[in-house]
Amino acid sequence: MNNLPAWKDKALFTPGPLTTSQTVKQAMLRDLGSRDTEFIEIIRDVRRRLVSLCASPEEYTAVLMPGSGTFGVEATFSSVIPPKGKLLILINGAYGSRIHKIADVHHITNTKLIYPENTQPDPAEMQAALKNDSTITHVAVVHSETTTGILNPIEIYGKIAKSHGCTYIVDAMSSFGAYPIDLKQCGIDYLISSSNKCIEGVPGFSFILARKEALNAIRGFARTLSLDLLAQWEGLEGDGQFRFTPPTHVILAFHQALLELEAEGGVQARGQRYRQNYAITLDAMQEMGFEPYVEESKRGYTITSFYYPRHPNFNFQTFYKSLSDKGHIIYPGKLSHADCFRIGHIGRLTAMDVKALMAAVAETLVEMNVELPERVEV
Amino acid sequence: MNNLPAWKDKALFTPGPLTTSQTVKQAMLRDLGSRDTEFIEIIRDVRRRLVSLCASPEEYTAVLMPGSGTFGVEATFSSVIPPKGKLLILINGAYGSRIHKIADVHHITNTKLIYPENTQPDPAEMQAALKNDSTITHVAVVHSETTTGILNPIEIYGKIAKSHGCTYIVDAMSSFGAYPIDLKQCGIDYLISSSNKCIEGVPGFSFILARKEALNAIRGFARTLSLDLLAQWEGLEGDGQFRFTPPTHVILAFHQALLELEAEGGVQARGQRYRQNYAITLDAMQEMGFEPYVEESKRGYTITSFYYPRHPNFNFQTFYKSLSDKGHIIYPGKLSHADCFRIGHIGRLTAMDVKALMAAVAETLVEMNVELPERVEV
Repeated sequence: MNNLPAWKDKALFTPGPLTTSQTVKQAMLRDLGSRDTEFIEIIRDVRRRLVSLCASPEEYTAVLMPGSGTFGVEATFSSVIPPKGKLLILINGAYGSRIHKIADVHHITNTKLIYPENTQPDPAEMQAALKNDSTITHVAVVHSETTTGILNPIEIYGKIAKSHGCTYIVDAMSSFGAYPIDLKQCGIDYLISSSNKCIEGVPGFSFILARKEALNAIRGFARTLSLDLLAQWEGLEGDGQFRFTPPTHVILAFHQALLELEAEGGVQARGQRYRQNYAITLDAMQEMGFEPYVEESKRGYTITSFYYPRHPNFNFQTFYKSLSDKGHIIYPGKLSHADCFRIGHIGRLTAMDVKALMAAVAETLVEMNVELPERVEV
Repeated sequence: MNNLPAWKDKALFTPGPLTTSQTVKQAMLRDLGSRDTEFIEIIRDVRRRLVSLCASPEEYTAVLMPGSGTFGVEATFSSVIPPKGKLLILINGAYGSRIHKIADVHHITNTKLIYPENTQPDPAEMQAALKNDSTITHVAVVHSETTTGILNPIEIYGKIAKSHGCTYIVDAMSSFGAYPIDLKQCGIDYLISSSNKCIEGVPGFSFILARKEALNAIRGFARTLSLDLLAQWEGLEGDGQFRFTPPTHVILAFHQALLELEAEGGVQARGQRYRQNYAITLDAMQEMGFEPYVEESKRGYTITSFYYPRHPNFNFQTFYKSLSDKGHIIYPGKLSHADCFRIGHIGRLTAMDVKALMAAVAETLVEMNVELPERVEV
């Protein structure tokens, strides 16, 4: 193994960890005391900036939680649902299923509406489920299902959840920062995302954007110590510190990433760049004969699933390896019933990077002797 | 707030996050795909090197767990104790008490032996507790109690635990890497430490060194999804990957830190450096009239608690701020019944750094008009 830093890292067309800017990584070249005033001020600024992206600071707050995005999801569900609560989960992919696993391991009573991975949960069925079961107190859904790249209409579900008096929890892991989200307008009580997604930081913590009034009502519900959302919030609001050692360097990188998001023009501008990466990818891939898995009206622009081409010479491992050797990392699929791979459009990647990937895909197809039919329209 | 990197960070005389080497931080200037072969190879090497510090790779393994050290502690206790198990906790500080909190939140039946913070748990009382209660299945203790810097005799407790057929769990958060520990000789089934302690990495994950046979017997006991120790191990042993996004940059830094530990001469040499930092600190502080809290025979060399001097002009906030302004971060106390502060001896700090701190302490006492009596021997 080579212990020297490579002169240039491969471009990451994945759902994260992502390619980040050099300046974001350089922000980690410091050692700050986690309980010292300078670092406490940085935490405060990070939390303030996060809220400012999606809500009013009077009504909403941000809580940082060490660990991956899943830690933030588990922190939320294991902290906010009362012992006698009941959770309805709208599932159309692996991350919706993961919420179900979390509910089960914590013995949270739950019910679910499950849809195929290329189909959005049906608002009418959600409405009926809430109408038929008045014991449901909480509703959960994933915004951008990284499994496929399908985008779920969170505002529609939010209005239904609110009309039934339910607390509404959205896993916005790979959409927050890429799509403008107004927490209040969507009726969201808790939104979860992570440091290494569309804010373009490095991995190491998740964050929960929460309605303060909702948070204030969950005392005594936490089922763990480390993942106790209320205690974590109270620590951050009290002395401004994490209860337990925070990933200081990762937070410094994230702070820099938030400054760079602002410099880019905010969520709107970032979304535009991602949308352009997506458009270039889609066009070139279809031109080469690849077929996207999700139909256009439901497709998001953070990650796209493509079917394996139906050609006897196509082998995903060879394809992946060849692209990797050329300096591009793509992502395997995660579907239960179809052979797909994924290409991410997020991170510090521009049109130039995407075009380089597309050129490498074309070269690789030639190398593999895979000739695909003419453009496939979906 | 100044967003530019400071030209030089303050030296951290704390229990962590610590001052790390520039090369450890520079290892984070890369973005690697978390599921790509290069990164998987690094995880494997990190795990291998961790085991090689304390045990045979045939019998023991290393599991990495995102989050702070407490996440690793909670992962262990919430995963390894069966529903009908009973835990005996030896407590002489805040971190022993934290294990008790974790046991309680997970409804793990437990009993405890509590000692004053300057007293080691009594092996005879532990022996009696195990003899009188045959339902106890697990025993837990903290090796170096960061609360005070007291060092507990883990080998003695281990032999007693084993003679009663108990599983033995040691929180070695701030001792692993600073003291040679032989897992087998100490009878340790699970040892927990973290990335930002004596291995001198940056914060972001904990690691659990575990006896494979013990790990293999805990199926079905995990009380959470994210902190499921067995599932995490199986993921790492299976495809070599984390189940959920790992803190890639923090792991790169840790890998570099392990190489630098080896280059320094391993745990023995590192312990020597820390012991020297401790000796210089203790001697100078006593010379200035400060009194250590823990008596010498029980004192470790990773962190030392000192009483606030009994002088009307001494004010800890002023003292802390003045040292900080001079470029040195010390640590407040955490004692329930005595006013103390702490000075850490770990991290990338040498005799030169320690002497600079001691000079700053002397200057600060003059500034504060605190004249202390002659050397206090303890």
